[in-house]
Amino acid sequence: MKPLRVNGERLWRSLMELARIGATAKGGVKRLALSDVDREGRDRFVAWAREAGMQTRCDAIGNLFALRHGSDARAAPILLGSHLDSQPSGGKFDGAYGVMAGLEVVRTLNDAAISTRAPIEVAAWTNEEGSRFPPGMMGSGVFTGVHALDFALAQKDLDGVTVKEELERIGYRGSGQPHPVGAYFEAHIEQGPVLEATRTQIGVVQGALGQRWFDVIVTGQDAHAGPTPMDKRQDALVAASRLVIEVNRIATTFPDYARGTVGQLQVKPNSRNVVPGEVRMSTEFRNASDATLLAMVEEYRRVAKEVEAACRVSIDVREIVHFPPSQFAPELVASVREAARALGFSHRDIISGAGHDAVYLSRVAPTAMIFVPCEGGISHNETESATPQDLAAGCDVLLHAVLARAGVASRQEA
Amino acid sequence: MKPLRVNGERLWRSLMELARIGATAKGGVKRLALSDVDREGRDRFVAWAREAGMQTRCDAIGNLFALRHGSDARAAPILLGSHLDSQPSGGKFDGAYGVMAGLEVVRTLNDAAISTRAPIEVAAWTNEEGSRFPPGMMGSGVFTGVHALDFALAQKDLDGVTVKEELERIGYRGSGQPHPVGAYFEAHIEQGPVLEATRTQIGVVQGALGQRWFDVIVTGQDAHAGPTPMDKRQDALVAASRLVIEVNRIATTFPDYARGTVGQLQVKPNSRNVVPGEVRMSTEFRNASDATLLAMVEEYRRVAKEVEAACRVSIDVREIVHFPPSQFAPELVASVREAARALGFSHRDIISGAGHDAVYLSRVAPTAMIFVPCEGGISHNETESATPQDLAAGCDVLLHAVLARAGVASRQEA
Repeated sequence: MKPLRVNGERLWRSLMELARIGATAKGGVKRLALSDVDREGRDRFVAWAREAGMQTRCDAIGNLFALRHGSDARAAPILLGSHLDSQPSGGKFDGAYGVMAGLEVVRTLNDAAISTRAPIEVAAWTNEEGSRFPPGMMGSGVFTGVHALDFALAQKDLDGVTVKEELERIGYRGSGQPHPVGAYFEAHIEQGPVLEATRTQIGVVQGALGQRWFDVIVTGQDAHAGPTPMDKRQDALVAASRLVIEVNRIATTFPDYARGTVGQLQVKPNSRNVVPGEVRMSTEFRNASDATLLAMVEEYRRVAKEVEAACRVSIDVREIVHFPPSQFAPELVASVREAARALGFSHRDIISGAGHDAVYLSRVAPTAMIFVPCEGGISHNETESATPQDLAAGCDVLLHAVLARAGVASRQEA
Repeated sequence: MKPLRVNGERLWRSLMELARIGATAKGGVKRLALSDVDREGRDRFVAWAREAGMQTRCDAIGNLFALRHGSDARAAPILLGSHLDSQPSGGKFDGAYGVMAGLEVVRTLNDAAISTRAPIEVAAWTNEEGSRFPPGMMGSGVFTGVHALDFALAQKDLDGVTVKEELERIGYRGSGQPHPVGAYFEAHIEQGPVLEATRTQIGVVQGALGQRWFDVIVTGQDAHAGPTPMDKRQDALVAASRLVIEVNRIATTFPDYARGTVGQLQVKPNSRNVVPGEVRMSTEFRNASDATLLAMVEEYRRVAKEVEAACRVSIDVREIVHFPPSQFAPELVASVREAARALGFSHRDIISGAGHDAVYLSRVAPTAMIFVPCEGGISHNETESATPQDLAAGCDVLLHAVLARAGVASRQEA
């Protein structure tokens, strides 16, 4: 018997229909959390879920759940999902794919008249992006107890409007409490270049990199660029540039998927003929191992001391975020790999460099993710693109990994 | 006979009185070119010059000249001066010192009833700073034919007001044409740290550094900091940081008073977790030798090519300004050195890193400058500071260098 496959064309049609809600002129999507178009997207998802015979509900932070019953009333549901909100200049696939893939799994099970032992539930988490209301991964953070509900409801956008007000305004403030989860699967575009570069269809995600974020202030002394000899300078930008290069060197030389980035840098007074007296910059390190991550940070602090002395500046390195690495559940990761193998898709183990709702879910339930390639590794951009074939392949893998976990209670024979 | 000395106390009082015009809360001066307070400063200077028996006039770009006749009607005047306008957060001495020192020389000659062979003329050049109306050194630039009068009159401030309109509004649009200059002397605070650091009272200025200014654009590729492995990045900020360090290295290793500065740097998209795709930065090099300056620029272009290849970015280096180095007149420089020696002041040869009106004047007349120390080398700042003793010493040197050049026709014996 040929293995069951999802309807890739239907999945693509749903993605394209969803992408019309908040569509931008350049072919992307702007569907900020709890905006009118987020409501439209939610309405669309709820309508589709009900058409598929699912029972929908909304919790106190607006997370949506669509349930397909299983044969075992006591079994905790197998959760499949991601998010429907987007970046201000986002694409069609980031988040939307995971939710639509969950829906497509249920539609496929319906078509095949397959009943599972454990219930299957599709989740759309509130405000994963955090673009309008920080912090990101808000809905999954509340669901997993990382954030208190009241904290999340009180967050404000730049206009001072709260999450609570907007949830109530768009009619998606529910009352449900977090419920037990048997396992969590999230399908997502890679948002990186590895799968495309290696011509791989399926990324078997092992976990997510830990992250440590820093605010760095380099203080030197403003001076006139003309009259001030080189040996009398305390140039904050020369010192900051050495730090930028050290961050890159550390990330290039340390093992365990090390990353290091200075994404933000501001110069004062930022005048063409004034030696800069101050630089404020971000630094972030990521690593799959918390021990290696710590070693990277220790190396950074060590070289910062060297640069301080060499450039006669002071350097303040202040940590603002520390996410430890996440390890996804080995048995679930193995089921994703096995599904990819059985279906004949090229696949490779990969680690998520970015945060996802799955990172929080992994704190309360066995969790796995499935990555599919995206063009040029580009996302958070209106040009974000993925092929129908790759998206269908990822959904096929999701289907079989879910079936392996949920258990087949009965199926219609072909 | 003891050498003639200026009245240092009177010089200090004039500087302090002038500094009240446009005084800032933090003890500095805001006297932007052609503003109401610039008019007040000009009025004050004209009144003082007339009290000292001088004949005042204003040329078509608003440069002020106050003439003390000499005994030789055919001799071109010996010009002494600087500027009365300031930076937005300027100090009490930058520019003002050179004009008040010129006035004090004349007052001292009056007190001593000394008549010179050549006339002595004190100049206050319009808009040296260029803070309100670019370019700087505007009045001396027009006087020396660097800029056309119409070009200068048409320059606008940020509100769209022209130089011509403001000159007319404040009543300082004259009609005089440039006249012959026998020599030009400008006393100025150093605006750098060398004299203070070496405990030297008088800087004997040899000339001014040449300058070459560049706009640099580094283009890489935006990418997510999490999912993008280090070896797949085209990080514009890493490349720019290497350039900053190379600029510093070049300026530190080349001879002839080399300077190199990146004062401005802007990152795009400047987001904490996005690998920067673009950096725009300034670069400027200065040197006393035009040949060494060219060699520095060639070395910079060479390393930019290396960085382009190493970081897989493109780097556009565009020159926007080229001032060749100025050599002041050796005989005038020698007269400044001789005056400092004869008066018993510690002195050293120095080169001006910054531009001054003297740089333009040196194109049409033998020119010299006298530097005095300023606290911490700081200027263009409200905390700019200099001591009455050092200012008087510089003015004494100015007096004797001017007398040597103008020639003494007659003097009252003590």
